[in-house]
Amino acid sequence: MLLKAIRQITGRKPSNLQLYKLALIHSSVAKEMRDGYRESNERLEYLGDAILGAVVAEYLFKKYPYKDEGFLTEIRSRIVSRESLNLLARKIGIDRLVVYDAKRSKASPQSFKYLYGDAMEAFVGAVFLDKGFPFCRRFIIEKLLGNHFDMDEVVETDTNYKSRLIEWAQRNNKQVRFELLSERSYGSHRQFKVQVILDGEEISRGNGYSKKKAEQDAARKACEQFDI
Amino acid sequence: MLLKAIRQITGRKPSNLQLYKLALIHSSVAKEMRDGYRESNERLEYLGDAILGAVVAEYLFKKYPYKDEGFLTEIRSRIVSRESLNLLARKIGIDRLVVYDAKRSKASPQSFKYLYGDAMEAFVGAVFLDKGFPFCRRFIIEKLLGNHFDMDEVVETDTNYKSRLIEWAQRNNKQVRFELLSERSYGSHRQFKVQVILDGEEISRGNGYSKKKAEQDAARKACEQFDI
Repeated sequence: MLLKAIRQITGRKPSNLQLYKLALIHSSVAKEMRDGYRESNERLEYLGDAILGAVVAEYLFKKYPYKDEGFLTEIRSRIVSRESLNLLARKIGIDRLVVYDAKRSKASPQSFKYLYGDAMEAFVGAVFLDKGFPFCRRFIIEKLLGNHFDMDEVVETDTNYKSRLIEWAQRNNKQVRFELLSERSYGSHRQFKVQVILDGEEISRGNGYSKKKAEQDAARKACEQFDI
Repeated sequence: MLLKAIRQITGRKPSNLQLYKLALIHSSVAKEMRDGYRESNERLEYLGDAILGAVVAEYLFKKYPYKDEGFLTEIRSRIVSRESLNLLARKIGIDRLVVYDAKRSKASPQSFKYLYGDAMEAFVGAVFLDKGFPFCRRFIIEKLLGNHFDMDEVVETDTNYKSRLIEWAQRNNKQVRFELLSERSYGSHRQFKVQVILDGEEISRGNGYSKKKAEQDAARKACEQFDI
């Protein structure tokens, strides 16, 4: 059953099924190992996250030869965001394979929010260890990116953190404003630094090569800090 | 000359010398290309950063089979920190090869602070594109990690952000304190959330599986925010 499901996802029969099994074990059902180490998919998630990041970085680097690193970084972070990976995990059927403790998930839903996306990363780690880099790279590019992302759409979707923050502030009767801290120039290259002030208190700072970029960066950090 | 220097660093003759040349061009001497894109090592730095991150992630994953992802993430971030890479770049001689505008570096020294480390990452990107993943992985593990890092030392060095923040606060006559916001348990697994209060204002929040880890995380964010 599991073997067949994995073969359907990766296109190849697993050599070491244990790796994939481990990738699908959420920490809520982890087993205690030696030295207090609890075996779940978290180590594979760490590895898969790094491999996925490198493959997507290379993919975008080659796809957009005239775009600067700010653009590439932004598009990559949209593709590998936890929301995006959670969605992708459902699309390829990882959600039906993950093992977790449903009782605990009801008690603290927040900590299970990215259950599927995290398992998706761990799954990539398993593919990498089982089949090596070239196969894993092809798997990511063809099966994950190719089938499930419309790059033009990803590029055009503007995750507007500034609007998100402002709307949240309005709903909660808070005052939010953006303040330009500094602006530096190196030839035609500029660097802006902006801070977010919420009810008179600085809550985050952001950088960017335009004022708008710096504001988005600062707003994104504020959103993360307050779980907005 | 350059060819020989590169060969000495990587152990192999470059196939595409242009890639390495580009890796050594700081943005202060970038040339304007089409669409306003300015050609410097920044795109290669973005790529090299991702490749380096993946290779170090895999290296640590295999070296420490019983350590959890918190440990692996922490050790990796010490190895690939900007300070660490800057130092490494000097050790392998990248600093003597980078081309930059020295006049501008005097005008704004801050933006040139990680000049060498950034070029080091770009250099890894060039090696990856020129020689492929297996060679680049060997280059990173043998020539960079193997020759220049004592892993036991890296593991033992405790970058204590909490002390760093407290010392900074004392020097600047500021009051700093750490407040536990929440503590959640999932079986034997716990999650702590801590905030840093500076002169009565919340400046950062951190998470961790122990109170100490959460404090370090919050302190690290505060240090980054205030360039401490």
